[in-house]
Amino acid sequence: MTTLIFGHQNPDTDAVISAMTFAEYQRQLGNTDVEAVALGELNDETKFALDALKLDTPRVVNTVANETDTVMLVDHNEFQQSVADIKDVTIAAVVDHHRIANFTTAAPLFYRAEPIGSTNSVLFNMFKERGFEITPTLAGMMASGLISDTLLLKSPTTTDRDREIFAELKQIADIDLEAFGLNMLKAGTNLAAKTDKELIDGDAKSFEMAGKSVRIGQVNTVDLDEIYARQAELTQAMTDEAKADGYDLFLLVATDILNSNSVGFAVGSDQDKLEAAFNQKFDGNQRLNLPGVVSRKKQVVPQLTAAFEA
Amino acid sequence: MTTLIFGHQNPDTDAVISAMTFAEYQRQLGNTDVEAVALGELNDETKFALDALKLDTPRVVNTVANETDTVMLVDHNEFQQSVADIKDVTIAAVVDHHRIANFTTAAPLFYRAEPIGSTNSVLFNMFKERGFEITPTLAGMMASGLISDTLLLKSPTTTDRDREIFAELKQIADIDLEAFGLNMLKAGTNLAAKTDKELIDGDAKSFEMAGKSVRIGQVNTVDLDEIYARQAELTQAMTDEAKADGYDLFLLVATDILNSNSVGFAVGSDQDKLEAAFNQKFDGNQRLNLPGVVSRKKQVVPQLTAAFEA
Repeated sequence: MTTLIFGHQNPDTDAVISAMTFAEYQRQLGNTDVEAVALGELNDETKFALDALKLDTPRVVNTVANETDTVMLVDHNEFQQSVADIKDVTIAAVVDHHRIANFTTAAPLFYRAEPIGSTNSVLFNMFKERGFEITPTLAGMMASGLISDTLLLKSPTTTDRDREIFAELKQIADIDLEAFGLNMLKAGTNLAAKTDKELIDGDAKSFEMAGKSVRIGQVNTVDLDEIYARQAELTQAMTDEAKADGYDLFLLVATDILNSNSVGFAVGSDQDKLEAAFNQKFDGNQRLNLPGVVSRKKQVVPQLTAAFEA
Repeated sequence: MTTLIFGHQNPDTDAVISAMTFAEYQRQLGNTDVEAVALGELNDETKFALDALKLDTPRVVNTVANETDTVMLVDHNEFQQSVADIKDVTIAAVVDHHRIANFTTAAPLFYRAEPIGSTNSVLFNMFKERGFEITPTLAGMMASGLISDTLLLKSPTTTDRDREIFAELKQIADIDLEAFGLNMLKAGTNLAAKTDKELIDGDAKSFEMAGKSVRIGQVNTVDLDEIYARQAELTQAMTDEAKADGYDLFLLVATDILNSNSVGFAVGSDQDKLEAAFNQKFDGNQRLNLPGVVSRKKQVVPQLTAAFEA
């Protein structure tokens, strides 16, 4: 039975492409019966990257137990971010760079996580450790995930190791990774073409914090005014979705990727926790200024978790 | 502040020595302010190993938040097996070879697990990947953990990789690892010198299975009759402890390390789950034959977890 490898729901570029990178790693280990799939439609940024690298789009699946008994996770571990029937299959391996929570297995497994900028960065280290070849295409794939997650090394999630890795990837790739990266990020911020629901769902993840269900979405933009103009419609869509899906709190973080700042919008309970987490007050327009915040993982989730658990 | 590194409560040889091995790894990484400690008194097997390798006994601690804000875990991850105040400190790293359960962090971390015979085997791989030197003493330390957890490569948890590692360690060590290993295992089975409470507590770990608290102890012996002669006293001690500490089920696995068989004794609820898990019935002496079972991790915990969740 083919082992399926996939990143989180609402897949971003690192989630989609790290599955493909890890599939290649498994093949080089001699484990050839693997397939990288995605838990949802690809976003415009990821499509741009696959197109530029001349790679096929992975198959989208909604369940896995109907076709396999063994899976490998990349770029996530929390079950609520994974495939719906994750509890019905054996998780043989995880490669990730997030916190660990709501994850459990019955048996020992391979687990590799590092607190660095992208799952593709972790995979780069694994290729190096084994002495596996990194082809120009693989270098482009790894760089796509790294560029996406670190906003071209600008996010505070960027570590010295990520900078070293990017420098090595630039030597291997046969395209200009800086120009490619900027175009890829821009391709992902075409907000006008997206519905309100697409914007709030696009990159959203669910977290459990002190027993509450917290949904956190993030939208990257080069112009926050575009978001402000749609604020009423976006928060209405968030209210509807929170009600339908049982989220206690829904936070949307709009990030200006050129100036490295964010603004938060929220619906639901516990908005005081948000103000406490970031030591900011919602202004008269119901906007929470988040100066310097660009990383949900490093600058939003830990702070909000701490505020909920305080 | 010194980062403390430790294995699980009721430490066995791999737990104690993998903390020391990982401390050495951290030092080689340049992270010199680390100390390996143990969450309990060392057993006779571990004392034998440290003595033979001319190593100091690590300090025993019961809490950590009073002296540090950062810890690293080896050979375990489940919080109920860790230090009592684990939730009050930041877990910077985990190196392990067990299932993952009841483990959660607020922030990304370094996590390395492999489904192989010992945590020291995983650490051997990490030393090799970095090109760090493995001295004869380090080889003896790594071998101690590997030999203890795999019963000198006889346990079914032993993988081909463990056999390769042991062969490499034999080349490096300046003592005869086969003879050392046999003497070390024998040193750990001096049951006559132990009280009933020491026997049932010695290597016991707690597990959560379908909401129930399950305690599983394991005693190695070269003569099961020694255990049978004390069965009534042992099960009484288990009953007392289950009541005092709130265990729903307490299973003691007595393992004949020469013949690679075990016998189980149990007190508490859900004993039908035990019979279902191993497809065996308790006999007239209230003994559950477990033919071929030597590994709690691979041959007891997953099967019993599955039976509880069925």
